[in-house]
Amino acid sequence: MPEYKAPLREIQFVMNEVLESEKHYASLPGCEDATPDMISAIIEEGAKFAERVLAPLNQIGDQEGCLFNEGEVKTPTGFKEAYQQYVDGGWPSLSHDPAHGGQGLPESIGTIISEMVGTANWSWSMYPGLSHGAMNTLSEHGTDEQKETYLTKLVSGEWTGTMCLTESHCGTDLGLLRTKAEPQTDGSYKISGTKIFISAGEHDMADNIIHIVLARLPDAPAGTKGISLFIVPKFMPEGEGVGARNGVACGSIEHKMGIHGNATCVMNFDAASGYLIGPPNKGLNCMFTFMNTARLGTALQGLAHAEWAFQNSLPYAKDRLQMRSLTGAKNAEGPADPIIVHPAVRNMLLTQKAFSEGGRALIYFCAQLADKVKLASAEEKTEADALLAFLTPIAKAFLTETGLESANHGVQVYGGHGFIAEWGMEQNVRDARISTLYEGTTQIQALDLLGRKVLMSQGESLKGFTKIVHKFCKENADNDAMKPFVKPLIGLNKEWGELTMTLGMKAMQDREEVGAAAVDYLMYSGYVTLAYFWARMAQQAQIALDEGSAEEAFYKAKLSTARFYFARLLPRTRAHAEIMQSGAANLMELDPENFIF
Amino acid sequence: MPEYKAPLREIQFVMNEVLESEKHYASLPGCEDATPDMISAIIEEGAKFAERVLAPLNQIGDQEGCLFNEGEVKTPTGFKEAYQQYVDGGWPSLSHDPAHGGQGLPESIGTIISEMVGTANWSWSMYPGLSHGAMNTLSEHGTDEQKETYLTKLVSGEWTGTMCLTESHCGTDLGLLRTKAEPQTDGSYKISGTKIFISAGEHDMADNIIHIVLARLPDAPAGTKGISLFIVPKFMPEGEGVGARNGVACGSIEHKMGIHGNATCVMNFDAASGYLIGPPNKGLNCMFTFMNTARLGTALQGLAHAEWAFQNSLPYAKDRLQMRSLTGAKNAEGPADPIIVHPAVRNMLLTQKAFSEGGRALIYFCAQLADKVKLASAEEKTEADALLAFLTPIAKAFLTETGLESANHGVQVYGGHGFIAEWGMEQNVRDARISTLYEGTTQIQALDLLGRKVLMSQGESLKGFTKIVHKFCKENADNDAMKPFVKPLIGLNKEWGELTMTLGMKAMQDREEVGAAAVDYLMYSGYVTLAYFWARMAQQAQIALDEGSAEEAFYKAKLSTARFYFARLLPRTRAHAEIMQSGAANLMELDPENFIF
Repeated sequence: MPEYKAPLREIQFVMNEVLESEKHYASLPGCEDATPDMISAIIEEGAKFAERVLAPLNQIGDQEGCLFNEGEVKTPTGFKEAYQQYVDGGWPSLSHDPAHGGQGLPESIGTIISEMVGTANWSWSMYPGLSHGAMNTLSEHGTDEQKETYLTKLVSGEWTGTMCLTESHCGTDLGLLRTKAEPQTDGSYKISGTKIFISAGEHDMADNIIHIVLARLPDAPAGTKGISLFIVPKFMPEGEGVGARNGVACGSIEHKMGIHGNATCVMNFDAASGYLIGPPNKGLNCMFTFMNTARLGTALQGLAHAEWAFQNSLPYAKDRLQMRSLTGAKNAEGPADPIIVHPAVRNMLLTQKAFSEGGRALIYFCAQLADKVKLASAEEKTEADALLAFLTPIAKAFLTETGLESANHGVQVYGGHGFIAEWGMEQNVRDARISTLYEGTTQIQALDLLGRKVLMSQGESLKGFTKIVHKFCKENADNDAMKPFVKPLIGLNKEWGELTMTLGMKAMQDREEVGAAAVDYLMYSGYVTLAYFWARMAQQAQIALDEGSAEEAFYKAKLSTARFYFARLLPRTRAHAEIMQSGAANLMELDPENFIF
Repeated sequence: MPEYKAPLREIQFVMNEVLESEKHYASLPGCEDATPDMISAIIEEGAKFAERVLAPLNQIGDQEGCLFNEGEVKTPTGFKEAYQQYVDGGWPSLSHDPAHGGQGLPESIGTIISEMVGTANWSWSMYPGLSHGAMNTLSEHGTDEQKETYLTKLVSGEWTGTMCLTESHCGTDLGLLRTKAEPQTDGSYKISGTKIFISAGEHDMADNIIHIVLARLPDAPAGTKGISLFIVPKFMPEGEGVGARNGVACGSIEHKMGIHGNATCVMNFDAASGYLIGPPNKGLNCMFTFMNTARLGTALQGLAHAEWAFQNSLPYAKDRLQMRSLTGAKNAEGPADPIIVHPAVRNMLLTQKAFSEGGRALIYFCAQLADKVKLASAEEKTEADALLAFLTPIAKAFLTETGLESANHGVQVYGGHGFIAEWGMEQNVRDARISTLYEGTTQIQALDLLGRKVLMSQGESLKGFTKIVHKFCKENADNDAMKPFVKPLIGLNKEWGELTMTLGMKAMQDREEVGAAAVDYLMYSGYVTLAYFWARMAQQAQIALDEGSAEEAFYKAKLSTARFYFARLLPRTRAHAEIMQSGAANLMELDPENFIF
């Protein structure tokens, strides 16, 4: 039976030592309550909830799945009760506005809770996760009245929320969407259409569900410029509770590869009452906040599956006896050696470890940027915003791809047993598989990074990050212990800019070059970005060791993992660099009719 | 609903044009019947059976799975009837000895049938697949009486067979196995023990099941040198049919990630009557034939999932309209362009195509080597045997890894829909996932390749192949059209040898270097091996075009795919080459106790 233990020491290391959270929070207005002691207490409580309540439900959720019957969804055993505990613990309100019942803590604290909750049970975590998205959208774009009516109930957790974007003929290309909104004389709208892939669209965990829906007004321009955003409640609010049922219902739920515990719903809107949020035809703009948050949330899923895979591969690798070490028996009194003696098994474990610990540093860094975007001074805000915009597609795509890889290593470490359901390793792969698809596929993130962010800004977006890397390298140039990390990082940081220039020049000749290079460019960027964070972690570990820390083994392991990352994962940049320069012709020359004969 | 169409033109291209099968069969004694016309007719019949009977059962098999009830297994709807058609068509006997009812055709024809059958429905194909393994073992090591009693019934397909190797505590490390064989006064044995992961161990498709079982004699030496091989029938043979039930029964079936249509059984042997095959304590040696055949059979699974993914991704990529091409609308009258206009989508399709077509060439080449090992003159046989031993771990591990990658691209091409069961793309990933695990994991194949084959032979094993590549490059040195392929191939062929030397030197200092480098060495070898076959296919296509073939589009697509392979897949060798030289220390330095805190 797989288990989850919140990696508290790792979390503290990244948060307090590498990213200096105390300084970070002290610099932000409104974060006065976020003292180290208070944060520690919150994280420890969150860890208990994740470990004791959610983790034991993860496999049950997969096995039972959600049951659909006449428009209603029954979530797996224990899900509803766990949600009630979550609400009772005040978790939904953590990082929301005190004006609507929130605790007003910075988003970056919420990220840590989300990490633990999501690693313990990703399917379950999506119910409050989608609510969080709906809350952020309402916070930012809702009227005071809308906030009073809906946000308060979402913040308390009495109600949950969804985001209704996708239709069967449009996922990536929202400009094609057809759901209609007819204005009514009372200022409301009648929403009609069908949405698919609506996570948590229907369930039995809360009294009401608030759908945030993209739809078109009658006179809306075609394409993305004619989309508006609406609130559509499942039940109409009435007094302190709910009244009549609205014209929205779940038509069916999907049978899917993984995340069985989360209901993925077809939602039918049949002249349902809806209320406009934000200006007409500006729905997509209003959604940007949500989309970026959702992308970082999905990056977290990559980390979650890597961490979970690592935690559950390691004990097996220590217990399973099979073959002898090539350098002689390491467990001579036993019938064979534990498989952790074999370099190929260690390679898989260290890959999981390096991706999860590196991923955590990247995500927490992004969460601090998100805090700044919300709370810092105008100048700092602009800078943080640009940097976050650059890092978001990298975090989303790179961490989900490497999360999926790590989950697959988990199966591989178990050998044939990894394929068997009871061990839980194959579930982790199936659950992870969605993460490179939803909230924009890896391919879409890659276009966003190279096309929209880097090339459209004439490379400025990249420079915002490479100058940070450059500064770090310069500061550590004379540090002998850091040379093995700083030297390759300097080279890659330079090459990153050169490759960007090369691609930019090619793209001026042929726009297809952007799409042809984008995925390799993104993966290359991911490896270099993580190298920077591994170098920072190595630096921090080195400082602690130099200071004679009592936790020698912990910091030495950190240095060891950094060395592993630089020696065995970072060289993958060699392939990506070459491939991204190979040109668009090798992809574009074949006529669609001649792919198969 | 996913579909399968046997790629007859591709099969012919590899078999007749690239690998000159007519010449091949003409050179082998006993292959007189294998005329091109006859082979064509057989393949076309096999294609119909695969397309019309098996492919439609693939998704049903996944959804229904096998049902276990009181020791009996019910296979999914239609599986039993399909097996009866397979038997009626004479397929089980194709490449077996006419002395026992076989048709005596070379194994390489059987490989083509296995490809089509396996691509259409891998789970179903494992029932006859395991029989085939049992038949080959009996053919090679059974007494005349054993052949008469068991082989004849297996060849006719009336009975099926299994291979019972694994026990819960030993998969890779068969030396640990505990199943016992007690000699009886009548010359038979009583077999007792529990085997796990027995594919097709119990089912409702045939009258009897013949288990080939590894067990220990009472006085057997410990480890791999004390293992013997036994025949254990489910029912005792009696007259022309079966008599009493033997003491072997299925205890349960596994719930697993994929291949749901195939029953993976726990088999309990409780003083079951068994009959020794081959000499006592030489069971593992007797199994080598089977293991190598099984490894090539699993390589075929890699090809199967890549081909299936490609066939089912392509129509979706042509139909699904989403976004516009970056170089302007390609489907201006439609609401959006088909996604095949996007370079990133093409990249995934071409990856699937290049791996499946390249994999087919490699496997058919291996199948011809297997023909030679069986039928050619002593000298040719020795050479073919050495080459086959070298290529087998590459084919098994590289083609299953790339098959799994291709299957995952299939999901990715479909976006969110790829995660939904009804489209079948996620099933393909789940079914493919076992292929890198069973019949020796990728890590075990890698050790076999680098440790046992290449380094133990002082590199001779590698040279057997690189000299073939070298000869090809030399022959094409003056051919301008071939330069883009020959030039990189020359470089890689040389580097391959150099890397081997480097690793060999390191291994002399530290045996861990072998395990630390092996997986990257294998993947590197796989990419170079496939580059050779892509170069040969390019050469053949160029010849056909120069001769003014009427199939210009077909041959041009072949050249285009070869260019794609060299430009976008082969550069992955850059990462593998660097990583395999990074040394063992970065893997071995961390104490197992310090992996997690």
